Parts: sequence; structure tokens; C-alpha cells
Amino acid sequence: MVAAVTDVSPVPGASDRTRVRRLPERAVNQVAALHAVLDACLIAHVAVIDDDGQPYVLPVAFARRGDEVVFHGSTGSRLFRSLADGGPTCLTVTRLDGLVLARSAFESSMNYRSAMVLGVARRLTGDDELDALRTITEHLLPGRWADCRPPSPKERAATMTLALSLAESSVKIRTGGPEDVPEDITDPVYAPVWAGTVPLTESFGKAIRSAEAQPDAPVPSYISTWRRA
Amino acid sequence: MVAAVTDVSPVPGASDRTRVRRLPERAVNQVAALHAVLDACLIAHVAVIDDDGQPYVLPVAFARRGDEVVFHGSTGSRLFRSLADGGPTCLTVTRLDGLVLARSAFESSMNYRSAMVLGVARRLTGDDELDALRTITEHLLPGRWADCRPPSPKERAATMTLALSLAESSVKIRTGGPEDVPEDITDPVYAPVWAGTVPLTESFGKAIRSAEAQPDAPVPSYISTWRRA
Repeated sequence: MVAAVTDVSPVPGASDRTRVRRLPERAVNQVAALHAVLDACLIAHVAVIDDDGQPYVLPVAFARRGDEVVFHGSTGSRLFRSLADGGPTCLTVTRLDGLVLARSAFESSMNYRSAMVLGVARRLTGDDELDALRTITEHLLPGRWADCRPPSPKERAATMTLALSLAESSVKIRTGGPEDVPEDITDPVYAPVWAGTVPLTESFGKAIRSAEAQPDAPVPSYISTWRRA
Repeated sequence: MVAAVTDVSPVPGASDRTRVRRLPERAVNQVAALHAVLDACLIAHVAVIDDDGQPYVLPVAFARRGDEVVFHGSTGSRLFRSLADGGPTCLTVTRLDGLVLARSAFESSMNYRSAMVLGVARRLTGDDELDALRTITEHLLPGRWADCRPPSPKERAATMTLALSLAESSVKIRTGGPEDVPEDITDPVYAPVWAGTVPLTESFGKAIRSAEAQPDAPVPSYISTWRRA
């Protein structure tokens, strides 16, 4: 097993701000890898700076739509309104894939896939917004949109949907086993310490029917068969 | 099943900035809940604002230590140095517990546990820093610290460890099933739509030994038996 990730070809539009400074060998700056990491995550963490300069990090449901990410919040949210007003933001997704246990604490690490997108969000409207809402629902559970009731005008008015271009993005991935320093591998005290990885996986459990659901309604196949990468 | 979370008693020191404005019924502002959510998450997302006012959201390994959170990075990281210099920050953790499928897209949601901490980080040194590093290792895998090699002076010099008080914090939890609008439950088209929850769980898989590990080394019980809440 090899501690991997070698490709550092830049994402088109990668700037000095998104070029990974630390451990650049983990920066798989490829569009395909960026898309794959975004597509593998269910939620993102988004930065908002308020009028006093205080940053907030908000968890949001999101989806990739082509070369942008879309996410939504409430029109009643002060922080979301501030994002729509054009403040600089950052959207980060991280999927943890396991613990990496080296013989030393220092070389111990985690396997993960993470992507960061910088920019200014723009508010979506009309059919473009509806398409983004559909994309978010379909990202969380492919097949759901066609089945459920689309948002009413009143519900649409309570929803703010934002898009952020992937033009300024980076992606960082760690895979593989620990990289012990050679001295630890031969040290009489530390050589015997167990070293390796402990994989971490996310999985969906058995669907639980709502109390108000029809008692004999079967679980739709788009729910029962969905497995994530 | 009830879409839960009722307690809104404030976390001591909760400020106007951390009192949850949206859906306050989900703000379980209790210290015990805050601690439990922080303890249930393996990574956090931390905000850093650079000199140009651009926010970044960085994934970090972290742990709660009493009434603060501690996390570490590289002394070579420009963004970490900027945090140590006293810029305002926000550390957020989110654990996703499932999809909540209402008959309408709008009422569909996710079950999750999330905590947000605002403040200014302080850099740790000496034994206090070593204790924080131990706490992070033990948070990720209880029992590991006693087994692995502690950081050398050179490794310590390459590590920056920061602490952030929980004094200004909020916690938000959603549990339970969907809350369909009454019209959807009786609507001839949408009443039959499957409604309920799909649980999402994180679990550790079988430990994979490093290529350099002793071939007959057994997996320590602190690894093989560890189960997270």
C-alpha cells in the first residue's frame, strides 16, 4: 500500500490562493478529481463573514452542477443574505476515509478527500433556481425529484439558492498507509507498534417509514438500492 | 417518530452571534449536548480570513478538551499562522445522521448534529501543547497515545497547536421523521409518495496492516474493539 496522490496538474483557473501550499503531492489538481470529490460528499461547509468581520462556517446541503456548486438556505437567514450580497466565500467538502496509524504520533494521519472552492456566490432565480433545487435533491438521492412534490411559489419565496463557480478550486486527497520514519521501523521499542490503516465508511441503513405514511407503501427502489461511491 | 429537539436553554456565554436564529427549536443550547456533538465528530472545519479578506474553510483533526477545542496544523502553513496571530475564527463540526424524506422537496431535510464555536484561537506551548496533542490522538482512537512514539523536539517544532474556548458556542440537532404539510398527506397525488428517513452511519472497517509492519503483529484491542457513538 502506497501513500498516494501524485498529480499536481492545475485545475483550470487555479490561482495562487487555491494552489495547495502544504504537501503539494496531495493536491490532485485535476478537474475530474475535483468533480468526483464534490460528488462523493453530501454536505459542504460554507464561510460567511458578517459586518463585524466575524467568520461563520455553516453546514449546507449542496450539489455540483456542471462547473459550479449550488446550495440553498432560508431567505430569512441573515448570513445567507450576506452571501447573496456578494461577500467573498469558501465552500469546502471533506470525506473522511480512514485513520492512518504510524508508529509515531507525528506521522499518523487520516485518509480523506477534500475540495475547496473560493469565490463570490450569485443568487439564482426562476427556472435556473428550480433546476438547482432539483440538482440538490437528486444529488442527495437520485430519483427522488420525480417522486416528490416540487416547491410551491410560497416555498420558493422562502428559499434562497446560491451558485459558486468552480473556477478557483483545489482538491486534496490522501490514500494509502502510514509513512513511518525509517528509525521507527527498526527501533526496538517502536518497531512492534501496530501500524496501518483503519478504513471509515459511510453507509445508508434501512429506510424507516414515517408514521403518516401508507402502511403498505413499499420502499421505492431508488431508495432501497442506492449505494454511494 | 417525532422531529425533535426542544431545549433552548442557552449555553453559558452564548452571545447574540451564536444564538441560533433559524429554527430555534433545533438549538439544543445545553453544554452536555454541545460536548456530545463535538465528541462524536472526528474532524472540524475551521475558518481563516487572509490579509485580503478572503475566507478559507480548512478541515482539521481536533478534539474537545474540557471547555475548549484543540486542533493542530503545520507551522509552515500561512493560514495556520494567521489563526495563531489572533484573527477571528469559527470552528464547526457536523455529523450527518440521515436523509429525511418528506412528500415535498421543501419539507425534506437531513438529520444531523452540528456545533459551532466562535472566538480567537490561542497557540499552545510546552506541556500544555503536548497534552493537547495527546488529547487529539486519544479522541481519534482511544488507547493509541500510550502505544505510539510521542513527538520529537523537531516534530514538535513543525507542529502548531491551537485552542479555542467553547465560551461562545451553539449546537443544533435534528432528529426524527419528516414533517409533511397536512395537504400533502391527504393529496391524491402526493399522499402515496414514500415518506420517512434513511439513516446514515459511519463505521470503521477491518484494520489493514502496513507493509512494513511485523507480519504476525496482532491488531491491538483498542483498535479492533473501538466503536463510536
